[in-house]
Amino acid sequence: MIQADRRAFAKALELAGAAVTRHRYAIPVLQTLKISAIGRLRIEGSDLSTMTCAEIDYEGDPTESFALCAPAKVRAAVNHAGGDRVTLEQQEKTARVACGKLDAAIATFPADDHPGAPRISQERFGVDMGAAELRALARIRPAISTEETRYYLNGVCVRNIGNWLYRFIATDGHRLMIHDVPLPGAEGDLPDNIIIPRAFIDMMLARFGKSREPVRFSFGGAALWNTPETDLAPENSGALHLAVRGELGKVSFAIASKPIDGTFPDVQRVIPKETKHHVEIDRAALVQAIQSLHSLGEGKTRALKFTAEPAGLRIAASHPDFGEATYDVAASHNLPADYLIGFNGQYFLDCCNALSGETVRLELNCAASPSVIRDPADTAFFSVLMPMRV
Amino acid sequence: MIQADRRAFAKALELAGAAVTRHRYAIPVLQTLKISAIGRLRIEGSDLSTMTCAEIDYEGDPTESFALCAPAKVRAAVNHAGGDRVTLEQQEKTARVACGKLDAAIATFPADDHPGAPRISQERFGVDMGAAELRALARIRPAISTEETRYYLNGVCVRNIGNWLYRFIATDGHRLMIHDVPLPGAEGDLPDNIIIPRAFIDMMLARFGKSREPVRFSFGGAALWNTPETDLAPENSGALHLAVRGELGKVSFAIASKPIDGTFPDVQRVIPKETKHHVEIDRAALVQAIQSLHSLGEGKTRALKFTAEPAGLRIAASHPDFGEATYDVAASHNLPADYLIGFNGQYFLDCCNALSGETVRLELNCAASPSVIRDPADTAFFSVLMPMRV
Repeated sequence: MIQADRRAFAKALELAGAAVTRHRYAIPVLQTLKISAIGRLRIEGSDLSTMTCAEIDYEGDPTESFALCAPAKVRAAVNHAGGDRVTLEQQEKTARVACGKLDAAIATFPADDHPGAPRISQERFGVDMGAAELRALARIRPAISTEETRYYLNGVCVRNIGNWLYRFIATDGHRLMIHDVPLPGAEGDLPDNIIIPRAFIDMMLARFGKSREPVRFSFGGAALWNTPETDLAPENSGALHLAVRGELGKVSFAIASKPIDGTFPDVQRVIPKETKHHVEIDRAALVQAIQSLHSLGEGKTRALKFTAEPAGLRIAASHPDFGEATYDVAASHNLPADYLIGFNGQYFLDCCNALSGETVRLELNCAASPSVIRDPADTAFFSVLMPMRV
Repeated sequence: MIQADRRAFAKALELAGAAVTRHRYAIPVLQTLKISAIGRLRIEGSDLSTMTCAEIDYEGDPTESFALCAPAKVRAAVNHAGGDRVTLEQQEKTARVACGKLDAAIATFPADDHPGAPRISQERFGVDMGAAELRALARIRPAISTEETRYYLNGVCVRNIGNWLYRFIATDGHRLMIHDVPLPGAEGDLPDNIIIPRAFIDMMLARFGKSREPVRFSFGGAALWNTPETDLAPENSGALHLAVRGELGKVSFAIASKPIDGTFPDVQRVIPKETKHHVEIDRAALVQAIQSLHSLGEGKTRALKFTAEPAGLRIAASHPDFGEATYDVAASHNLPADYLIGFNGQYFLDCCNALSGETVRLELNCAASPSVIRDPADTAFFSVLMPMRV
């Protein structure tokens, strides 16, 4: 029988539960959380691609591990029941969970059935990431592809470009976002063009995005949490994993995943080397224009048309059923009078929203060439957007 | 060409849009809003069962009516475009909508294609409803049936029980909620057992629920808004409608609907005349117990078992896959030692949540008889709940 802080236990179930498969027909043991009490109370989840581990303090004797069924239901019950402490006791085929006036016997699986979560036992690369580094990931996040066929685009590619500067790249084939991030505290080497999966990044941003403490991002050989240290000779460490680990209140939380096993395309080819035309626009006015037209343009498939006016741009949206609309935005540019180019409204908006400066600079060639969208005052970040035929 | 306040216009589109069918394959003209500028700018919506009318001030000459396509898209565009005034101008087959730097030509239908919204021209019953009366409707709202086969249960039945007291009744066959509401300001007569549709009540609560001004609830013969007063002799007024009308900032908003054409069952039969057993429990503790167990009981189909303990009740939930749980609540009661009764957790919770006092009183007979759940300090409201076999 062990005891732990009720709120920390509920929080740990929530955090580790992020990797629990919600799908009703998933393998049953993947719908459980593995619970171990050795040193700390450790709660592990896995959907076989992303793995989580939440640790809290406990009192009592070390117990055998087990895999707890229906962790989201247990968390809701514990949250509502109140009380300061929660009691866990392993019984035959069930685990007793008691707190406040609640006394529940929850079904369990044998611990060995659960794949568990790995930890980095042989760190090959490590860096402390703070709010700025997490913000950089959040900024290029919209450009990550969600299409399954080109699975190697379902993540962020990281490349060391020298001088402790790392280039973070995301693209879905329609738009490309690049952010150069200085990581002066980085130790070790990251393999070139390693691809961090989207699910890992999403979970990292969701859990640690508002954390005030830096989190440890590492890459290296991994072992299960309960592997004794003596078995961790380099030759025994398992597959190479990415992991991020940090403190969230009373819970130590770690996320692990393998990098995506694929080759990220050479994006340098699509970045225009030089551009003939440029437009500079107030960012707030541009975002307002796109948002206003975007709703009329029915979602993401409809193109917005950009034409040159003497004192700015005219942006137009049309819909075969509902009509058409134009919006004039003041801008300084060197476009020819008959210039016309089309962009997907949602993608264009994403590129503008990833910027934070006052001005947006568009760098354009012909209406079929990739265009660059950037903040002239921020050289670390830019987007490349493919135009649409209009 | 007419002009109106942009924010009021957007608000009016939103309010009237509540009755616009969202379904993609609905009749196209029901996806539009009818716009007329005669006296006031009037925006009418209809899904053929619930009708809305929002009115705002305008400047300019009266114009012909038209039915505006894609009103939700127009509203989003107008909201984002900014500017103080919006300009509306009817053109051939389109309407020009301009504000700020936005200039849109939106497709229209002929006004005659739109069914429009009725107003009560011959009030047979009318009453000003304030926050207390709306709260009474909100309280019994959870018991309204959503099942289509017994369509006459899809609303609230109202019955004049004398002394300016009106009984509001809702039931879905599993639970029954009754609220007696004094309406001393009521004028005229309401037909006995009139059924107010759920959609009308939901829209009324959503739009006027936080209104500080009283709203006018009326019943009577209805005519279209633009019918000249001279045509409103009693013999010309159309079908009998329910309506509610109030001011929301710069917008006058009205909702109209026919009452449900059916016979509400005689609920008096299921209200137990006398009860052998009673239980008195602290409401907060009971709600906490149900919520804690409810999450384990997997949604609404699983029963919660209530058994008598010397100093209170033991409530138990069980799930064939996940295990079982018990929760002890202190209570004073006169139940026999072997008493056992089951209730649907969600329904029980709804009945407890509809109460606001400190204590809940359960009035019980045998495990198969309807039970009463009430606040002993509040005689105006009570619920009757059918038990489940456990």
